[in-house]
Amino acid sequence: MSTVGILGGTGPAGQGVALRLAAGGYDVVLGSRDADRAAHVAGELVARGTGSLSGAANEDAAQCDVVVVATPWDSAVATVRALKEPLANKIVVSMVNALVREGRELVPLYPPRGSMAAQIASALPNSTVVGAFHHLPASEMVNLDSDLDADVVIFGDDAASRDVMAEMVDAMPGLHAVVAGSMSLASATEAFTAVCISINIRHKAHSYVKLAGLRH
Amino acid sequence: MSTVGILGGTGPAGQGVALRLAAGGYDVVLGSRDADRAAHVAGELVARGTGSLSGAANEDAAQCDVVVVATPWDSAVATVRALKEPLANKIVVSMVNALVREGRELVPLYPPRGSMAAQIASALPNSTVVGAFHHLPASEMVNLDSDLDADVVIFGDDAASRDVMAEMVDAMPGLHAVVAGSMSLASATEAFTAVCISINIRHKAHSYVKLAGLRH
Repeated sequence: MSTVGILGGTGPAGQGVALRLAAGGYDVVLGSRDADRAAHVAGELVARGTGSLSGAANEDAAQCDVVVVATPWDSAVATVRALKEPLANKIVVSMVNALVREGRELVPLYPPRGSMAAQIASALPNSTVVGAFHHLPASEMVNLDSDLDADVVIFGDDAASRDVMAEMVDAMPGLHAVVAGSMSLASATEAFTAVCISINIRHKAHSYVKLAGLRH
Repeated sequence: MSTVGILGGTGPAGQGVALRLAAGGYDVVLGSRDADRAAHVAGELVARGTGSLSGAANEDAAQCDVVVVATPWDSAVATVRALKEPLANKIVVSMVNALVREGRELVPLYPPRGSMAAQIASALPNSTVVGAFHHLPASEMVNLDSDLDADVVIFGDDAASRDVMAEMVDAMPGLHAVVAGSMSLASATEAFTAVCISINIRHKAHSYVKLAGLRH
């Protein structure tokens, strides 16, 4: 089974993905700028879940076979740019959404290349970027006992990498992979996260996207 | 009950909304540039459904209490601009998505004001624009016997108009209103339609968005 590193994995979004990747059988290295904090958070997650999960510096997480970017959006490009060498010739998964609070809503920002996945791809010309994990509620993701049953929209320009990603998502409990298509769908997928979170704020819910009528 | 006009209602998207509005108890006037065609399509829909539904010119549909814009995206602004007077002081519902085919995908376009709803609002300074009906599969919408059970994301800057719209959606069989928030969510909601349709093309499905965990 592949090893998966998570850059910025101590945030709420990264933790949930780490926990469910480990539960799905992957060897997970949860990375952080602060290796001690990563080790602490990884210890907490191990206590809640199953599988192999450790904490380390982002530099160590970047050595894994597949690497997920789970940093805040405004540090994503700087983080991956510094790790360009270890990330070369790998699948790099962007789960980053550029969002900003406006009153009681989160609203999307549009980066100059259209999406955060495109910003990351631009900073990593020797890596293959796919997008996934955008619309997932963090509180349900970190609780393996929640009855989460969510569809994960996957996009990217490389078909083989999308397939690797879909296999990974389908191995994670509570998640179902849905390949949408190319990077031309990145901005729309990322920005819809703002709609999901704004709905959850307004309706005091932890809802998530399901594409009814798709599963067989 | 209010009367609802549908501009460009003879297209697949408009027909489904017309059919389900009529089934929900609204008096529907399905409009078209070609009144004869509108009358013909309305007759076909009446044969499939229940309620009050007639066909007319767009100019006549624009006289209704609430007016839905269901034209192709590239004629939406010209259509409403010509009807600025009858649309004044009314709720105008944009269900328009700016999408373009790229290979086997539909990808979103971003209009200069960010969304088609904003383009329409700009052309109608005396109307109140809300957005709805973006992610619905046309083939399921026009068939009242399909087991459609879809969430409809509603956005707009006027809270009272969003509530009117939510009441309307909840009266329509198979649809459930979810108020997302302001016009700041318009581009993300519209663009996500490209993701939904691309998924359906790729997976040969008629899927639609449900927000799991939201309904009580």
